[in-house]
Amino acid sequence: MTPVIQGERLLERLQTLAQIGRTDSGACCRLALTDEDRAGRDQVVAWMRELGLQVHVDPIGNVFGIRAGRRPELPPVMTGSHIDTVRSGGAYDGNYGVLSGLEVVASLNEAGVETERTLVVAFFTDEEGARFPPDMLGSLVFVGGMHLDDALATRGIDGAILGDELRRIGYAGSSPLPLPAPEAFVELHIEQGPVLDAEGTTIGVVENLQGISWQEITITGQANHAGTTPMSMRHDAGYAAAAIACYLRELALEMGGTQVATVGKTDLSPNLVNVVAGRASLTVDLRNTDESLLQQAEQRLAAYLQQLAEAEGVEIESRRLARFRPVTFSQQVAEKIGQKAEALGYSHRRMTSGAGHDAQMLARICPTAMIFVPSVGGISHNPAEYTEPADLVAGANVLLHTLLDLANHGV
Amino acid sequence: MTPVIQGERLLERLQTLAQIGRTDSGACCRLALTDEDRAGRDQVVAWMRELGLQVHVDPIGNVFGIRAGRRPELPPVMTGSHIDTVRSGGAYDGNYGVLSGLEVVASLNEAGVETERTLVVAFFTDEEGARFPPDMLGSLVFVGGMHLDDALATRGIDGAILGDELRRIGYAGSSPLPLPAPEAFVELHIEQGPVLDAEGTTIGVVENLQGISWQEITITGQANHAGTTPMSMRHDAGYAAAAIACYLRELALEMGGTQVATVGKTDLSPNLVNVVAGRASLTVDLRNTDESLLQQAEQRLAAYLQQLAEAEGVEIESRRLARFRPVTFSQQVAEKIGQKAEALGYSHRRMTSGAGHDAQMLARICPTAMIFVPSVGGISHNPAEYTEPADLVAGANVLLHTLLDLANHGV
Repeated sequence: MTPVIQGERLLERLQTLAQIGRTDSGACCRLALTDEDRAGRDQVVAWMRELGLQVHVDPIGNVFGIRAGRRPELPPVMTGSHIDTVRSGGAYDGNYGVLSGLEVVASLNEAGVETERTLVVAFFTDEEGARFPPDMLGSLVFVGGMHLDDALATRGIDGAILGDELRRIGYAGSSPLPLPAPEAFVELHIEQGPVLDAEGTTIGVVENLQGISWQEITITGQANHAGTTPMSMRHDAGYAAAAIACYLRELALEMGGTQVATVGKTDLSPNLVNVVAGRASLTVDLRNTDESLLQQAEQRLAAYLQQLAEAEGVEIESRRLARFRPVTFSQQVAEKIGQKAEALGYSHRRMTSGAGHDAQMLARICPTAMIFVPSVGGISHNPAEYTEPADLVAGANVLLHTLLDLANHGV
Repeated sequence: MTPVIQGERLLERLQTLAQIGRTDSGACCRLALTDEDRAGRDQVVAWMRELGLQVHVDPIGNVFGIRAGRRPELPPVMTGSHIDTVRSGGAYDGNYGVLSGLEVVASLNEAGVETERTLVVAFFTDEEGARFPPDMLGSLVFVGGMHLDDALATRGIDGAILGDELRRIGYAGSSPLPLPAPEAFVELHIEQGPVLDAEGTTIGVVENLQGISWQEITITGQANHAGTTPMSMRHDAGYAAAAIACYLRELALEMGGTQVATVGKTDLSPNLVNVVAGRASLTVDLRNTDESLLQQAEQRLAAYLQQLAEAEGVEIESRRLARFRPVTFSQQVAEKIGQKAEALGYSHRRMTSGAGHDAQMLARICPTAMIFVPSVGGISHNPAEYTEPADLVAGANVLLHTLLDLANHGV
C-alpha cells in the first residue's frame, strides 16, 4: 500500500496548534520557552506519542520523535523545523514543517510501510530568537556550534535566563548531545518570500541559503537651519543616509544574481522639517549566496562610505551587527527533492533561501536541503501569513517521498 | 556732537535680558506670553522709559517706544524685532535688534540729536510662534494680515488661549491698530546662518527673504522580508524616501541661485533592519527668493513623485504644511544700509534671509530692509548662539546711521 498524505489531517493539526497562543488580533504568539510554547510543545509531543514515536528531549529542549527503521544501526534520516513563533506570528512558519513530518509518519503508519533507516521528526528550540537571541539557537547547539552552558545562560529580552525557563516548562531533557550525525536532513518550510507565489510554482527546491551581513551606519554631520544654510555649506547627515540607501539599490541591481540590499531602518536627528539633520543612523542588510560576492558588496559599500564622508564633510562610522556566511546545501538531496516533485507532477524550481532556517545548522553535520511552498504575497511573520491548502499538501507529499527515498536508499 | 554706539552698554543690556528665563542648561526660555516673557517685557519697557520713550502697547501686545521727532505729522521711522524666544534659545535672536534700537536712542539722547521724523523702537509679540503658531503673529496682526480676534483666540501648544495670556501678563494694550504705515522699517538681526561668518564679512545688507514651501510626503509601499524579497519585487517605501531626498539635492544644485531643499525628517515603518519598509514619511523644505522658481521647484518635485510612484509601485501622497511667498525688500532702504556700512568701513554684502522675520510683515506696508551680523558657525535657536561683540557694535552703528538718515531725509 502506498503511503498518502491526508491533507485534512495536516490542516487540522495546523489549525489546532495555531489556536495555542492565539492573540486577540489573530496572531500566534508562542515565544520560546513561555507557557504558550510549553502548551504547543505538549500538544506536538502528544501527537508524536499517538503516532507511536519514541520522544527524546535533549538538554537544550530540542525534541525528537523517533520512528525506528529496520536497520537502527544506520544513521537516521531527519526532518523537522520549529514551533516557536515571533510575537505576532502566523500559523505556518516552522509549524508546517514539523506537522508535515508527523503527517509523513502517520501516512507511513497507515500504509504499514517500514523504512530501512530510522526516521526522526524534530523541533528545535528558539529558532526565531525573538525572546532569546541568537536565532536558530537550539539547532546551533545541536550541531555543536554553541556550547550548551553558554546557551543555557542566555538572557532573554525580558531578562529571563534560558536554562531557568527550560526547566520551568519541563523541557530540559537528557538525550545525549550531540547525537551522531544524521544520514540527511530535509526541512519543509513556507517560502516567506514572494517568488513561488508570483511565478505560480508549487515547489521550491532550496539549494542554498544567503549569507547575511548586517551593519549599523552612524553619520555625524552638522545640524543647521534649513533656510539660512546654503547647499554648498551643508554637512547633511540626512542626505548622506539617503545617498547610502540609493547607492545600495544601485549596487544590488548592478551586481545582480542573488544580491539583495536593504536599508530598513533610518533615524535622523533632530528630525525636524526645518533643520538639516546633524546625525543619522541607518541599518544595512546585505545578502548573497556567494561569500566572495557578499564580501565584494561589503567592500564596495565601505569604499563608497569613505568617498561620501569626504564629499559631504561628515563622519561615517560602521558597526557590524551580524554576519553569517552563505550555506550551500547538498546537491544530492536537492536533486532528490526535484525528482520527487517532478514525479508527483508539481511545478518546481531551484531557489535560494533568503531567510535563516534550522537546516543551515544541520548542513554543518550532514547532507541537507529544504523544500519551500508558496507564501501568498510573500507575507510572513504576520498573522496574514497564508499558504493554499493544495500547496501545503503538495509540499508534504514531496517531503514524504524524499524522506522515504533517503530512508531506504541513503543519500 | 556725533552720536556713538556704546558697545559696553549694548552688551550689558543683552546680558541682563538673557538672564531672564535662563535655564539650567544656559539657554534662554521666554516663550511668548509666559511669566518669563512678561519679565523680559517689563525690563525692556523699563529701559524704554529710562530713555524717555513714550511707550504704547497695542491690543496684540506689540510694544512701541516712541521718540518724537521735530515733525510729528510725518510718518515715523521704525526699527524693532522681538524678545520672545524658542524653548532653548540663545541671547541674540530678536533681542539684539530691539536692544540695538534702544542703544540708538541712547546715543541720540546723549549727543543731543533730534530727528525730523519720529523714531519708534518696537518689539512684536510671538515672533517665534514656538508657543502660539503661526510665527510672526504680532507683526502679522500689526500690518492687518490677521484679524485681531482670530489672533487673540489662538490656542497654544500648551492649550492656553493667547488673549487670556496676554491679559494675564498685562500686555493687552489699547494703542490703535493698525497704526498709520511708517515711513520705513529697518530690522537688525543676527544672520542665523553661516554665510557672513564663513566669509569674514561684517554686515549683511538683506534685500530679500526666501519664500518657503513645506510639504509632508507619505509613501505606502509593501513591508517585506529583506532576505526573501528579490530587488525586482520590492515596493520599498524606504528606498523611495531616500530617492526623493537625493532628487531634491540634485534639484537644488541644478537650479542654483538661492534655491535650497531639505529633507530634515524621515520616518520609516516598521523601521527594522530586516524588513523592507512598508511605509515612510518625510518632510520637504523648499526655499527660493523667486516665487516663480519656487513654484518650478514644487512642480518638478511633483512630477518626480509621480514618476517614482510608477517606477517603484508605491503610493505617494503629499500634504502642504506651510507656504509663504518670497519677500522683496526696498532697494532704497537696502542701498542706504550698504552706504552706511561702507562709510563706517565695514565689509558688507547683499544677501537673502533664509529665515522668517517681523520685517517681512512690515514690508507689506512700508519700505523695509534688514541688517545682518555674523552668527558664529551659523548656530541659532541654541544656547551656543554667538556673535562677536565687535560685530554686534558694528551692526548697531549701521542701524544708527541708517535710522538717522531715514528719519531726517526719508526714504
